[in-house]
Amino acid sequence: MSKKNEQGKSASKLKVIPLGGLEQIGLNMTAFEYEDSIIVVDCGLSFPEDEMLGIDLVIPDITYLKDHADKVKGFVITHGHEDHIGALPYVLKELNVPVYGTRLTMAIIENKLKEHDLVESTRRKVVSFGQHIRLGQFDVEFIRTNHSIVDAAALAIYSPAGIVIHTGDFKVDYTPVFGDAIDLQRFAELGRKGVLALLCDSTNAERLGFTASEKTVGRTFDYLFTEHKDTRIIIATFASNVDRVQQIINSAYKFGRKVVVEGRSMVNIIETAAALKCLHIPDNTLIDIEQLKNYPNDKTVIITTGSQGESMAALSRMASDNHKKISILPGDTVIFSSHPIPGNEKAVTNVINELQMKGADVIFQDVHVSGHACQEEIKLIYSLVKPKYAVPVHGEYKHRKAQAKIAEELGIPKERIFMIQSGDVLEMDGAGAEVTGRVPVGAILVDGLGVGDVGNVVLRDRQHLAEDGILIVVLALEPHGNQLVSGPDIVSRGFVYVKESDELLDEARLLVNDAIQTCLDRRQTDWGKLKATIKDVLSEFVWKKTKRRPMILPIIMEV
Amino acid sequence: MSKKNEQGKSASKLKVIPLGGLEQIGLNMTAFEYEDSIIVVDCGLSFPEDEMLGIDLVIPDITYLKDHADKVKGFVITHGHEDHIGALPYVLKELNVPVYGTRLTMAIIENKLKEHDLVESTRRKVVSFGQHIRLGQFDVEFIRTNHSIVDAAALAIYSPAGIVIHTGDFKVDYTPVFGDAIDLQRFAELGRKGVLALLCDSTNAERLGFTASEKTVGRTFDYLFTEHKDTRIIIATFASNVDRVQQIINSAYKFGRKVVVEGRSMVNIIETAAALKCLHIPDNTLIDIEQLKNYPNDKTVIITTGSQGESMAALSRMASDNHKKISILPGDTVIFSSHPIPGNEKAVTNVINELQMKGADVIFQDVHVSGHACQEEIKLIYSLVKPKYAVPVHGEYKHRKAQAKIAEELGIPKERIFMIQSGDVLEMDGAGAEVTGRVPVGAILVDGLGVGDVGNVVLRDRQHLAEDGILIVVLALEPHGNQLVSGPDIVSRGFVYVKESDELLDEARLLVNDAIQTCLDRRQTDWGKLKATIKDVLSEFVWKKTKRRPMILPIIMEV
Repeated sequence: MSKKNEQGKSASKLKVIPLGGLEQIGLNMTAFEYEDSIIVVDCGLSFPEDEMLGIDLVIPDITYLKDHADKVKGFVITHGHEDHIGALPYVLKELNVPVYGTRLTMAIIENKLKEHDLVESTRRKVVSFGQHIRLGQFDVEFIRTNHSIVDAAALAIYSPAGIVIHTGDFKVDYTPVFGDAIDLQRFAELGRKGVLALLCDSTNAERLGFTASEKTVGRTFDYLFTEHKDTRIIIATFASNVDRVQQIINSAYKFGRKVVVEGRSMVNIIETAAALKCLHIPDNTLIDIEQLKNYPNDKTVIITTGSQGESMAALSRMASDNHKKISILPGDTVIFSSHPIPGNEKAVTNVINELQMKGADVIFQDVHVSGHACQEEIKLIYSLVKPKYAVPVHGEYKHRKAQAKIAEELGIPKERIFMIQSGDVLEMDGAGAEVTGRVPVGAILVDGLGVGDVGNVVLRDRQHLAEDGILIVVLALEPHGNQLVSGPDIVSRGFVYVKESDELLDEARLLVNDAIQTCLDRRQTDWGKLKATIKDVLSEFVWKKTKRRPMILPIIMEV
Repeated sequence: MSKKNEQGKSASKLKVIPLGGLEQIGLNMTAFEYEDSIIVVDCGLSFPEDEMLGIDLVIPDITYLKDHADKVKGFVITHGHEDHIGALPYVLKELNVPVYGTRLTMAIIENKLKEHDLVESTRRKVVSFGQHIRLGQFDVEFIRTNHSIVDAAALAIYSPAGIVIHTGDFKVDYTPVFGDAIDLQRFAELGRKGVLALLCDSTNAERLGFTASEKTVGRTFDYLFTEHKDTRIIIATFASNVDRVQQIINSAYKFGRKVVVEGRSMVNIIETAAALKCLHIPDNTLIDIEQLKNYPNDKTVIITTGSQGESMAALSRMASDNHKKISILPGDTVIFSSHPIPGNEKAVTNVINELQMKGADVIFQDVHVSGHACQEEIKLIYSLVKPKYAVPVHGEYKHRKAQAKIAEELGIPKERIFMIQSGDVLEMDGAGAEVTGRVPVGAILVDGLGVGDVGNVVLRDRQHLAEDGILIVVLALEPHGNQLVSGPDIVSRGFVYVKESDELLDEARLLVNDAIQTCLDRRQTDWGKLKATIKDVLSEFVWKKTKRRPMILPIIMEV
């Protein structure tokens, strides 16, 4: 079934090839291939797992796209979140193809491209909702949805083999703060026409019911501003949640408070959104952080980054007294308008504790709604679209599995529901769909300027070093190699507190010295064997004495 | 007010000195001092924070107890959880005093002492509920409570200055699985007599309502066993939750299934509890893991450790196909009878994903109840005891603060509620209470056999190594020091993948070589300055090229 129809026969199939995003949150990237045309939906990064020591971020492996670079017509982007656009600057350096997205999405991408000096070299096009763009044999239509960022889109991907709908991240918000509600009619229309496959957001597929409207958070702010009318109010939320910021500004304005925005990423996005008029800031509402002191505390609101307990973000620095301009005062009301992303729970709790110790009143529950569809919304989309095939996307396995169950409940036969993995080639047309092959996929680690130069070997070394440190043994041999002319010296880092471990290290040195002398006396001067002997002797001694296994690194010099 | 009454004047005050446990979960240890007598409630460990790289566990600093060793009459232990007993083996080596606890608590402690070869040298006494023990000027009464381990006790500590009640970890369970309900009458009686201070568990003080009875989980098991009667059932829970294990065994027996217990810590506790008849196992119910193959899948239950996603625990090994004897089969029902402890959320989720990918049906919600009192239970205890002073204990700051609010709501004046820190000396008698001083406290890190030899310097090095690895520069100088006889060589670990970074490292070596030559030519042969030059040159080069900051370690040998 994996035969290629390079000649444009009508029997060609559509290939859906996820290049990331099905094993974790983030790294979203899916290629759609039909004959000589490939389009790629999204180009996201993911943040490093705990064991990826020292890594800044992770991007998808695009070997498959590079190998078929002549086919790739462009990236179509669903919305401006890092897990959907964050890999673009890295990927575009290797594959310079056009990028398409809605207004705010593209503005955020442009900010990113500027940082990487890629604006000039990247072809970009802003697409309106309802607009179609022609990309090789594909035609892509952007459909308005709702999400925790303005201008989110679903994509209807028209191919000769049929229409596929990719929801991107979405929720159904009948009363959004900015812009219109999700274009349910268009989903229905396409459903009537006949949709081959639905790739639908699974993030909240384990949650019952319907995600509340973003507007409900605005009412909560009004309530909290009334309840805390005598104190300063500090609100942490996601930098990119423009609607949330809008609602804080609305409440501040209503209650006669001035607003300070703190945190670089938030300032950037707010400027971008305001320039596009996605955010309306009444005159004389925003003030500079330097002006804070000119207003009474109960007349100010600080909107800040750090809602995930990120140690370098503004709120965390305030909580730990490391912020240059804002100190937490007893009586401050601090509101987390967010929910901890899995893995950040402890960091968030630590910041809450620190804030409370400084006397702040911290509110961290029920001042947030999700940007993702819960079960009833997923059912709604399936019922409008009535796809032939269901391909749950966006989420860990458990989330996607939960959506697969929903699809089954809605009557889609099990064999038409595809729990695929990144790298699977899912070929489909009206007659059938199946996984016919694999392409290379993986997580490329970015560390500083290095992209992909830190792999498993380096990570294993970092883990080893992190666990028990390192013992370095240096010695100098004369040219013929059977005479020790200096050393062995032992230097350690991250192993024991050296000043209190003289004895241990002295004993180790003597032991290594004896072992080397024995080797040399026996004319065993092969450096590899010498090093192995040193490692064996020292690791056994250290394990016996400390039950630790530091990295042992013998270095031999010839003089 | 901090005057000492060493001569036994009737005006002496009681000192309450928490030596740990007020800043984090775990490390519970509180000294009570009256004139020449000190007793210590609990001796717990805590598990290392993320940034404590390579650390196995953390124990409290007992400098204050060692400095007053002649006064210390013994440890009184509330229950057998690691955060209340785990530091005993380490502390008893430095301070050999008697240990008092209830039956199961003491049996678990004895297992621990055996591992550390301390059984012979440790005086121990099993105390019954209602029993009083005399310890210097103190008298301690053990009061029955309920918790997620059998034989949990609160302590009534009688001193000449008044009675203090320490709840330990507790909940109110009117229908416990084993033994009787918490002795509310005794709390009331003591309250009538007059209680100076209440030290009450804060863990769940943020949660509304009343913690459900452990028995409710038994009903859930019966329901799940009915629903999943055709599959093998694997249940993960806390090793020490004997009542939970009892209920799984009860359901298994009722449904005609054989039970395998897997995971060393769980096997140990079950054996201990069964020997004390705290656990009743019907004949022919427990089978050995080797016998599993002799029974159909729907006639077996596996009770296992790993409910927190611990990578080395049995369930995690099954999920990742690393368990020697049990493989997850498609259709298996896996139940998490637990809730993730903060910080473990992601690890648990990863295990759930792995299990689902193997085709298991995973149930991870609503098969657990907490072992800690919620707000209404805390109110109940306060209303029975009616203490003069409230000292919230057990929990992070935010939990304790939540209890402080409850105490205030119940009418305890704010100035009688003490949000103290570990190390504070809280002096009290009927006339008043205040913090009068500080004693040394801290977290002692245990790494392998080393207790306290890994401190901030070593941890900082490990963090540095973990982040960007290490570059070692070795060179040999002749005795007079102004002639390079070998090197500089550069060796790296955890920095870049060396095989693909030849150029970078070669360039670095040339740069360092030039810098050294320049120094030597100028007769700058001070080793300290040479090393500083190497560090400066190399770190600048590496930062420019990679935006990384590996540890740079110059080693100079004289030959």
